[in-house]
Amino acid sequence: VKAAVVTGFESPLEIQELPIPDPGPGQVLVRIECSGLCHTDIHAAHGDWPVKPAPPFIPGHEGIGVVEKLGSGVSEPAIGTRVAIAWLGSACGHCRHCISGWETLCEAQQNSGYSVNGTFAEYAVVAAAFANPVPDSISARDAAPLTCAGVTTYKAIKVAKVAPAETVAIFGIGGLGHLALQYARIAGGFVIAVDIQDDKLAMATELGADHVINASTTDPVQAIKDLGGADVAVALAASPASFDQAFRSLRRGGRLVCVALPANDAALNVPIFDMVIGGKSVIGSIVGNRNDLADVFALHEAGRTRVVVVDRRLDDVNAAVDEVLSGRVTARVVFSL
Amino acid sequence: VKAAVVTGFESPLEIQELPIPDPGPGQVLVRIECSGLCHTDIHAAHGDWPVKPAPPFIPGHEGIGVVEKLGSGVSEPAIGTRVAIAWLGSACGHCRHCISGWETLCEAQQNSGYSVNGTFAEYAVVAAAFANPVPDSISARDAAPLTCAGVTTYKAIKVAKVAPAETVAIFGIGGLGHLALQYARIAGGFVIAVDIQDDKLAMATELGADHVINASTTDPVQAIKDLGGADVAVALAASPASFDQAFRSLRRGGRLVCVALPANDAALNVPIFDMVIGGKSVIGSIVGNRNDLADVFALHEAGRTRVVVVDRRLDDVNAAVDEVLSGRVTARVVFSL
Amino acid sequence: VKAAVVTGFESPLEIQELPIPDPGPGQVLVRIECSGLCHTDIHAAHGDWPVKPAPPFIPGHEGIGVVEKLGSGVSEPAIGTRVAIAWLGSACGHCRHCISGWETLCEAQQNSGYSVNGTFAEYAVVAAAFANPVPDSISARDAAPLTCAGVTTYKAIKVAKVAPAETVAIFGIGGLGHLALQYARIAGGFVIAVDIQDDKLAMATELGADHVINASTTDPVQAIKDLGGADVAVALAASPASFDQAFRSLRRGGRLVCVALPANDAALNVPIFDMVIGGKSVIGSIVGNRNDLADVFALHEAGRTRVVVVDRRLDDVNAAVDEVLSGRVTARVVFSL
Amino acid sequence: VKAAVVTGFESPLEIQELPIPDPGPGQVLVRIECSGLCHTDIHAAHGDWPVKPAPPFIPGHEGIGVVEKLGSGVSEPAIGTRVAIAWLGSACGHCRHCISGWETLCEAQQNSGYSVNGTFAEYAVVAAAFANPVPDSISARDAAPLTCAGVTTYKAIKVAKVAPAETVAIFGIGGLGHLALQYARIAGGFVIAVDIQDDKLAMATELGADHVINASTTDPVQAIKDLGGADVAVALAASPASFDQAFRSLRRGGRLVCVALPANDAALNVPIFDMVIGGKSVIGSIVGNRNDLADVFALHEAGRTRVVVVDRRLDDVNAAVDEVLSGRVTARVVFSL
Ligand SMILES: [Zn+2]
Ligand SMILES: [Zn+2]
Ligand SMILES: [Zn+2]
Ligand SMILES: [Zn+2]
Ligand SMILES: [Zn+2]
Ligand SMILES: [Zn+2]
Ligand SMILES: [Zn+2]
Ligand SMILES: [Zn+2]
Repeated sequence: VKAAVVTGFESPLEIQELPIPDPGPGQVLVRIECSGLCHTDIHAAHGDWPVKPAPPFIPGHEGIGVVEKLGSGVSEPAIGTRVAIAWLGSACGHCRHCISGWETLCEAQQNSGYSVNGTFAEYAVVAAAFANPVPDSISARDAAPLTCAGVTTYKAIKVAKVAPAETVAIFGIGGLGHLALQYARIAGGFVIAVDIQDDKLAMATELGADHVINASTTDPVQAIKDLGGADVAVALAASPASFDQAFRSLRRGGRLVCVALPANDAALNVPIFDMVIGGKSVIGSIVGNRNDLADVFALHEAGRTRVVVVDRRLDDVNAAVDEVLSGRVTARVVFSL
Repeated sequence: VKAAVVTGFESPLEIQELPIPDPGPGQVLVRIECSGLCHTDIHAAHGDWPVKPAPPFIPGHEGIGVVEKLGSGVSEPAIGTRVAIAWLGSACGHCRHCISGWETLCEAQQNSGYSVNGTFAEYAVVAAAFANPVPDSISARDAAPLTCAGVTTYKAIKVAKVAPAETVAIFGIGGLGHLALQYARIAGGFVIAVDIQDDKLAMATELGADHVINASTTDPVQAIKDLGGADVAVALAASPASFDQAFRSLRRGGRLVCVALPANDAALNVPIFDMVIGGKSVIGSIVGNRNDLADVFALHEAGRTRVVVVDRRLDDVNAAVDEVLSGRVTARVVFSL
Repeated sequence: VKAAVVTGFESPLEIQELPIPDPGPGQVLVRIECSGLCHTDIHAAHGDWPVKPAPPFIPGHEGIGVVEKLGSGVSEPAIGTRVAIAWLGSACGHCRHCISGWETLCEAQQNSGYSVNGTFAEYAVVAAAFANPVPDSISARDAAPLTCAGVTTYKAIKVAKVAPAETVAIFGIGGLGHLALQYARIAGGFVIAVDIQDDKLAMATELGADHVINASTTDPVQAIKDLGGADVAVALAASPASFDQAFRSLRRGGRLVCVALPANDAALNVPIFDMVIGGKSVIGSIVGNRNDLADVFALHEAGRTRVVVVDRRLDDVNAAVDEVLSGRVTARVVFSL
Repeated sequence: VKAAVVTGFESPLEIQELPIPDPGPGQVLVRIECSGLCHTDIHAAHGDWPVKPAPPFIPGHEGIGVVEKLGSGVSEPAIGTRVAIAWLGSACGHCRHCISGWETLCEAQQNSGYSVNGTFAEYAVVAAAFANPVPDSISARDAAPLTCAGVTTYKAIKVAKVAPAETVAIFGIGGLGHLALQYARIAGGFVIAVDIQDDKLAMATELGADHVINASTTDPVQAIKDLGGADVAVALAASPASFDQAFRSLRRGGRLVCVALPANDAALNVPIFDMVIGGKSVIGSIVGNRNDLADVFALHEAGRTRVVVVDRRLDDVNAAVDEVLSGRVTARVVFSL
């Protein structure tokens, strides 16, 4: 089995040949067709965050494939089922978070490509209950980015409680942003896309953004205030300046949803006076749960979203990482396997 | 009419003798019996915040009294009605905020004792619709602190959506805190009171706190985590360390409500990684609307809250300000007039 | 001034020539261009409901026109402003409902074309604060149906808390239904349109319904269950059978929003066992507030809705009523004036 | 093992001696100390509802005991743990309802004492994950009624979204009602207790009701309207008249929560005009989930609730049923085993 392996936080990924993993009790083995490249994979490979994975490990959590073998005690999904392996590799099922619909906050969760091996490989194992069914009508190439970039931004729009006719500013167009803006619109919002690259803003317009702002040439805070201010801002770019602009673009009663995870212990500076007087909030949002992912697939199946993909070979994983870091990738890299 | 007047941000307040004000169209004249001293009055007198009042002006926005004269076009409240003059002196009634139940966010609002003269005086005028009825059974001395300290903390508990059996940590016991903890309990919460003075914590216990923590001798973050973490933390003390501790005491899914307004352009530093991974939020909360104040009075009338008052004469306003700033006042100073 | 007048509940409307009304204090005079014909107008003319209007009166509450004269004390909207006169003719502004964002529940409200004269006339007066601005880009012909059919169904979708990827069944396509289905879709829903006329279902498909069901030939309850059941059902047809089917089409956790108002004291029969075991709800929803109407106009201006109109002359008001009652009108009759 | 068994819907329960059941995979065996008698048990024994259990079976779903043996694959709760067996005997864990926090709506759920054998026996088996921990400080005698009467009414107050200072009318005091009124108060509500027996109303007053109404001598609808109307009404008595009164006691914007389950296919008649004009809702509420039960125990442990129990021997089960049906039991019968 070919796999891309992180051997150390200072080294590039290594393409290795490994044995086919065996599904443990309650797990299934999946033959991977496609796997998307998420910023989180890069942070994982570099050990960027306070909680670090333990090399050697295989990143990847946008893996689409077919169930080939069932571990003991598993009856579904049946062999042959198309499934998606997402960031949430498993959760305990009986803590307060799991019982209340927030399995993504479970303290006992496992994360694909981080605390357990992920999908940058021809085969991967996953807990049967977290092998999410993928509708037949969705190509693996489209399903991959939906599995993390899709469900993450879908959830961000949901926790922001975007209502029809609200104005939503998306800070950062790309893998996440090109989907975030579509979900904001699906929820009835008027969408303002903010980025520093014109090609990404052109894509945003094509995907339904009502307004676009190039933050390298225009002050996005002033421009958004001129449009009446944002009810909701979604911070998808990991730069401190971008978080700050997103907060300051809010109108009274507005909500900033933070999704991007900067390296290290970065902090958001919230001006207290303005937040209190203006009744504003800041909300942290991680990926969605299994229902959210099913919704994301259902919306795509109904033709309500479009996924923009750049195809790469897994052998070129390090080159693809460079492309992403340099901003040369318009939306999402997907590896075919 | 005796009044305490701010003549400049560097000077003490001055007790002056002024003419009785005349109620304009849509206003009423109120003979003030009692007026509470809020931290906001001190910030107003010192010009502490980004948006400043214009001296000379009379502070005070916890004024209780009786309507003595009606301006043109006013039919209610009738002469003789007991009313409270609160921070929200008026709002426009037809902007999006006013129409949606958020008159406290109205951009055209007037604020008593800040943008218009307040209640540190024997007489004050106020918009008739914002002269809030006070039930007969509530003494003016109790009603005064409820009018700002009460409604502000009541609203904080409400925007935090405290549910029964949730754990609520109140950071800062005193004028606001001694009421906040009671509202947290009224909403069904388990309450942890945090302060640096033992007398205030003793009061907290007496008023129903389930746990108390002296932050000058115990690390409140660790102590709260040992209790399972806070679902909700309410930041009532204006120190940066207190805000920071309040955020870090949250469990996953927790919400920090910011109420205190530090001087100048102070910022809250939110650790992004922890906020996103833990699904945490930070919410700014200003005072409540007229319904909230009516609720606060109804709860007090039903015996569900207790107000702790320290009595002072208006002539001693500057000494009282010193007492508050030095932390010597356990709960709320109320001036009788 | 030409007007259509209800002179008694048993008689047809009468076209009369009346003097131009004079705007009272706080009111404006509006020169009406267009006025839609709502089912409520017919119920008003027939005295169908428990609370009855007092003839003679002028019905109409989807009136679009231009402000021609201001009553005393009014500064806005300025003369020349295009405005909409809706069902909510005024509200008190200071009761609990008004303060909390629910002016539509104000016990002191006036209703256009019911408790006060409406817009089936060349001129009408209305409280200045309830003369809702209409964007220039929206034709009067489109604005009229949005003013009641639009805002009513928009609010129904809102109180149902429709979330993206939920299934919404609209029972009754026509004046209200053709807009309800668009708002359900704007909120991200998958829409099932139910009616007994194929022309209306064809319109529904064209306007974005995902599924259509002809209830005269197919059992809609079974058909909707086959699609997985409805998360939300909206009852827009006043027949008891339709309400009943709408409830029974719900999946567990589903919500039925009742909008239609049958004549007399009609009751909805809710099967208690199924409601309790299935965690289902039934919600009454009346028109939206002024913010909701502004949203409805903003969505139309942005091209997100389409209004289907049948043009009639006010002189033919009785014939138009007959057309509506016989089901011959696909969507909304609008009178030009 | 002694057990009370339903052998047919027309016969009294039979006390039988049965073998100790063996815990299957994923189950635990519990030695029962106490078991409460719920109205649901009586409906089960009589086959009153549309969905019927299959005799012979053992009723009971308020069972408190100690884990004595673990089935295969079970590691917790450990042997010796005190646990509660509730109505929700198990749920699938991976359907939309389970994932979203609504395991009580799971279509694959098992119900103790209904679809599987219950706790009217010295021993019972239950799915390990649904053997809910009981804090040591709570007596089995108190824990039993909390396990169904408690969690059911706690959830009803929760789905009604009772906010502080709202008025809550509880229709039917007794096993459920005496706890419902305490939870309404814990959530900050003003409580009106309605019943037809003075002894139950006296208990209600003692437990904190703000008002009591004897519906056999006073019209509760008028009496509640005189108090301003109810924001929330909770229907706990299975009589159609009581449901009807509960609905009609609501003020505008009010919510009726239905909990009682009348025999057969009883329907609630909701007056549509009043519901729509008044913006009222009717909500079905079944028992709470495992988090809700943990909350109920935590509140009791903190001294915030009181449980009123009538002790009976399991041998007298049929006499106890008669007592309950005749209304002679003030609150909850608990069998000791
Ligand atoms: Zn968990
Ligand atoms: Zn990712
Ligand atoms: Zn305003
Ligand atoms: Zn204050
Ligand atoms: Zn209408
Ligand atoms: Zn009102
Ligand atoms: Zn029960
Ligand atoms: Zn389930």
